[in-house]
Amino acid sequence: MTKSIMPDHPILELLRKRWSPRAFADRPVEPTKLQSLLEAARWAPSSSNEQPWNFLVATKDNRAEFDRMLACLFEKNQSWAKNVPVLMITVAAKNFAHSGKPNRHAFHDIGLAVSDMITQATALDLFVHQMAGFSPDKARETYSIPDTHEAVTAIAVGYLGDPNTLPDDLRERELERSTRKPLNQFVFTRKWGESAEWAG
Amino acid sequence: MTKSIMPDHPILELLRKRWSPRAFADRPVEPTKLQSLLEAARWAPSSSNEQPWNFLVATKDNRAEFDRMLACLFEKNQSWAKNVPVLMITVAAKNFAHSGKPNRHAFHDIGLAVSDMITQATALDLFVHQMAGFSPDKARETYSIPDTHEAVTAIAVGYLGDPNTLPDDLRERELERSTRKPLNQFVFTRKWGESAEWAG
Repeated sequence: MTKSIMPDHPILELLRKRWSPRAFADRPVEPTKLQSLLEAARWAPSSSNEQPWNFLVATKDNRAEFDRMLACLFEKNQSWAKNVPVLMITVAAKNFAHSGKPNRHAFHDIGLAVSDMITQATALDLFVHQMAGFSPDKARETYSIPDTHEAVTAIAVGYLGDPNTLPDDLRERELERSTRKPLNQFVFTRKWGESAEWAG
Repeated sequence: MTKSIMPDHPILELLRKRWSPRAFADRPVEPTKLQSLLEAARWAPSSSNEQPWNFLVATKDNRAEFDRMLACLFEKNQSWAKNVPVLMITVAAKNFAHSGKPNRHAFHDIGLAVSDMITQATALDLFVHQMAGFSPDKARETYSIPDTHEAVTAIAVGYLGDPNTLPDDLRERELERSTRKPLNQFVFTRKWGESAEWAG
């Protein structure tokens, strides 16, 4: 199953193929592929090259560890994420290592790193589903995350599965077409709200 | 000129080619390429598909408008960014449109969108340099950004230029090898600080 997004302007096949499934195949992710995913994240840019990203990773071959991470997710997400082969929790360093001052872009730079991880995943036929729906507090407690850091997202990684394995409401969402605002609603020139003439 | 990064594990050529130059060529970016860049950002994932990203864009063919955006950058960045053909300022919607509640991932999701824009740029032989070094307050004033939103980053886009056009200190940085922490310093299992055995 593929989602066919309909871009208004040409974009890379790698970006067109990406979407966030909930149905994942019962198939492990090869450790060499996991290495490439994290390596892609590693080389992302960041403010002052701070690299504020950290990744807690649980693979299903260690079921007890997998279940500890799964328990950090909100129940709604647990219902499908229990079937994925790999879970991650991203954790941001809140302050700059060199100065101790707050890093305004810590969360932003986690986004930069995870995005490159996703692009790499797509190239390896893997899919990624990021979740805001988890408990950063429970993650802190479970993994002894220090006060200097904060959990940002939970992430599921794996091969694409069969939407028919999902409960009804989630299966419907799985089959829906992806939608986005048009460019002229978020690309502006001269002042806020004024569309760029080339951004149709 | 290319920077040759040395990944420890295989990653996409598109990700290996990316770096953040300060020397840009005196050559405009084609409007069709700008469209593809923003279109790539458009299809990024976001928390609840909120798409909190907005882009203010100034191209050098309108010099007065370009200079207004340039003036939002810190002086150090103006020194090289005055030569780029395209500047952008990203702006996050701080709250969810449907509920008005704070979007914890607004900055994070800007990172996701910009990262896809950069990947698209690399595929089109363009380079991107993101900056934390600008004034969000001056951007708010210059563009009448509403209180519900906040400027996140400034961004330079263009074709690669000649490092010899840079002042001495910046030229040195331009020619330095890119470095990153090894995977075992930020990929953990079981608990905080415990390296994954496969993350060498």
